Amino acid sequence: MGKREFALGIDVGGTNIKAVAIDARGRELRREGVSTPSVGREPLIAAVRMVARRLDGGDARWIGLCSPGLAARDGRSIVWMQGRMEAVQGLDWTGALASKRTVWVLNDAHAATVGEAWLGAARERRHAVLLTLGTGIGGGILVDGRLLQGTIGRAGHLGHLSLDPFGLPDICRSPGSLEDAVGDSTIERRTGGRFTSTADLVEAVEAGDAQAGSVWSRSVRSLAAGIASLINVLDPEIVVLGGGIALAGDTLFVPLRRELDEAEWRPLGQPVPIVPAELGDYAGAIGAARHAMSIDSAVLGAEG
Amino acid sequence: MGKREFALGIDVGGTNIKAVAIDARGRELRREGVSTPSVGREPLIAAVRMVARRLDGGDARWIGLCSPGLAARDGRSIVWMQGRMEAVQGLDWTGALASKRTVWVLNDAHAATVGEAWLGAARERRHAVLLTLGTGIGGGILVDGRLLQGTIGRAGHLGHLSLDPFGLPDICRSPGSLEDAVGDSTIERRTGGRFTSTADLVEAVEAGDAQAGSVWSRSVRSLAAGIASLINVLDPEIVVLGGGIALAGDTLFVPLRRELDEAEWRPLGQPVPIVPAELGDYAGAIGAARHAMSIDSAVLGAEG
Repeated sequence: MGKREFALGIDVGGTNIKAVAIDARGRELRREGVSTPSVGREPLIAAVRMVARRLDGGDARWIGLCSPGLAARDGRSIVWMQGRMEAVQGLDWTGALASKRTVWVLNDAHAATVGEAWLGAARERRHAVLLTLGTGIGGGILVDGRLLQGTIGRAGHLGHLSLDPFGLPDICRSPGSLEDAVGDSTIERRTGGRFTSTADLVEAVEAGDAQAGSVWSRSVRSLAAGIASLINVLDPEIVVLGGGIALAGDTLFVPLRRELDEAEWRPLGQPVPIVPAELGDYAGAIGAARHAMSIDSAVLGAEG
Repeated sequence: MGKREFALGIDVGGTNIKAVAIDARGRELRREGVSTPSVGREPLIAAVRMVARRLDGGDARWIGLCSPGLAARDGRSIVWMQGRMEAVQGLDWTGALASKRTVWVLNDAHAATVGEAWLGAARERRHAVLLTLGTGIGGGILVDGRLLQGTIGRAGHLGHLSLDPFGLPDICRSPGSLEDAVGDSTIERRTGGRFTSTADLVEAVEAGDAQAGSVWSRSVRSLAAGIASLINVLDPEIVVLGGGIALAGDTLFVPLRRELDEAEWRPLGQPVPIVPAELGDYAGAIGAARHAMSIDSAVLGAEG
C-alpha cells in the first residue's frame, strides 16, 4: 500500500462548497470550505477544482460529489435541479474536473444520510430515516443498510409528505406539505411576518413568548405527524434530525418526543429513537466520499 | 425431479382461509377457500390443516402462510395482532400444523405485495407500492425487488399516513389518517350515516347523486395526497391499488389520476402509473407461497 489511500468528498451547496479527504476507516485527513460562486457554471467548476486541488484530490482513490437535485441513474451527474442551482443540472463532474477517476454524484440529503449511516447517528443501523430541517425539509432513507434512491432518484423527499390534502401546494406541488409546515422558507407566512428565521422564533419560544410558543407547537406537532407517518411506512430503527432547525435542541426534541408519545404507533411497546444528527455541516461531503468508496467496492466485488 | 415440485400458500383471513398450490414458475395447480371459524385457536388450526390436506400440502416443498398482524423476525409466527384475530398472535405455524417443512409467515398485505410483484400488476418492477383499499387501508412496499418489512415488520402500514396532524387518532394513533379518510370502516361517519359501505357510496356516485359525489371527491383527493406523498418518499415505478374499493374501477381511477395531475411531483415529466391489482382475492396466498420459495432459495443459496 505504501501511501495511505483516501477518498475525496465534495458537497457543492448553494452557499458553500465543503470538501473532505477521508480514508476507508473513516479517519478524516483534511477538510476545506469556500463560498459558492453566485453565477455561472465555469466559476463553479473552477471553485470545486480549487478545493479538490487543496485536498490533494489528484491522489484520491475515490471521488464523490453531492449537490441539490436528483442524481442521474448512471451516478455521474445531477439530472434535474429545481430553480436554485441550475448550473449543476446535467453537468458530468468527471469530465468537468478532468478527473482520472469517476466522480460519483449523489443528491446532498442522500449523501448526508450515507454519512450519518457510516460515521454518525445512524451508524450500525440497517433501517434509518434522516430528515434535514432547514430552509426546506430534505431527507434520506436507509433500507437494509443501503441508501434508497428509487426509480428516478426522487426517494427520500420527505418534506413533500402531504399533511393536508386541501392545503396550498408547495414547490413540489404537494398540498399542505411538511416542508411548508416546518421549513424556514414559510416562517414569515406562519408568524404573520413577525419572524424571518426559525432560529429567531426558537429564541422567542425560549424567552417564554406565548404567540411564538403557539406557532412552534403547531410546527412540532406537524413534524411529529410526519415522523409518525414515516415510521408506519418505513419502520426504521432510528430517526435522525439534522439541519439548522434541529440545533434548537431540547426546545425541539422534548415537545417532539411528547407529541410522538401520542401519535406514534408502538405495537411492541418501544418508541423509535429520535436523535440529532452528529456530523454537522460536513455530513454530505463525508457521505459523498463514502458513496464513491462503496460503488467502487461493488464494481470491483471487493471491500474498499 | 419426477414429481412436480410446488409450494403451498395459505392466507388466513378474518373471514376466509384461502390457499393455493403453485409451482416455482407460477403455474397454479389448485386453489381452495373455506370460512374462518369465528372463535378459538384450535378450530382455526383445524381448518387450516384441512385446507392444507385438500391441496396435498404434505407433498409441498415449500409452505407459506399469511395473516393480519406483524410477522416475527424469525418469520415463523405473527408476533402481534391488534384486536381482530388474536388467535394467530404468537402461534408458531410450523408446530401447529405439525409440518415437516418450516411454515414461513408474512403479514397479509406484505404477502399480497409479493404476489403482485411475482405474477401480478407489479411484475418485473424493482420499486413498487401496493395499497389495499378495504375496511382498512393496508399496503406493502417493494424496494430493489425485495419486500420492505422494516425493523419490526411494521413497514408498509400505508393507511396510517397522517393527512391532518390535528385530526382524530385512528386505530394506530395516527391523527387524521389516510385509512380514516378513505377506508370502509369510517364510511358511516363520513356520510352522516347515509351509507354503510363504500360500494353503496360508489353506486350512488355513479347514479349522479351530488351529496355522494362530494363525499367521494374528498376521499379521492385524500387518497391522491397519500399516493403523492408515497411517491415522494419511495419513488416507485408503479402504484398498485387492490382491495374492494379499487373495484370501483373508472369511478376511482379517473378522478384519482386527475388529482395526481395536480398533486404529484414529476421532475422528469412522467407520472407514476396508478394501476389496479391483478391477482384478486388470492394475491396473499400466492405471495405467501412465493415468499416461502424465496426464503428457501436464500437459505440454500440456490435458485428455488
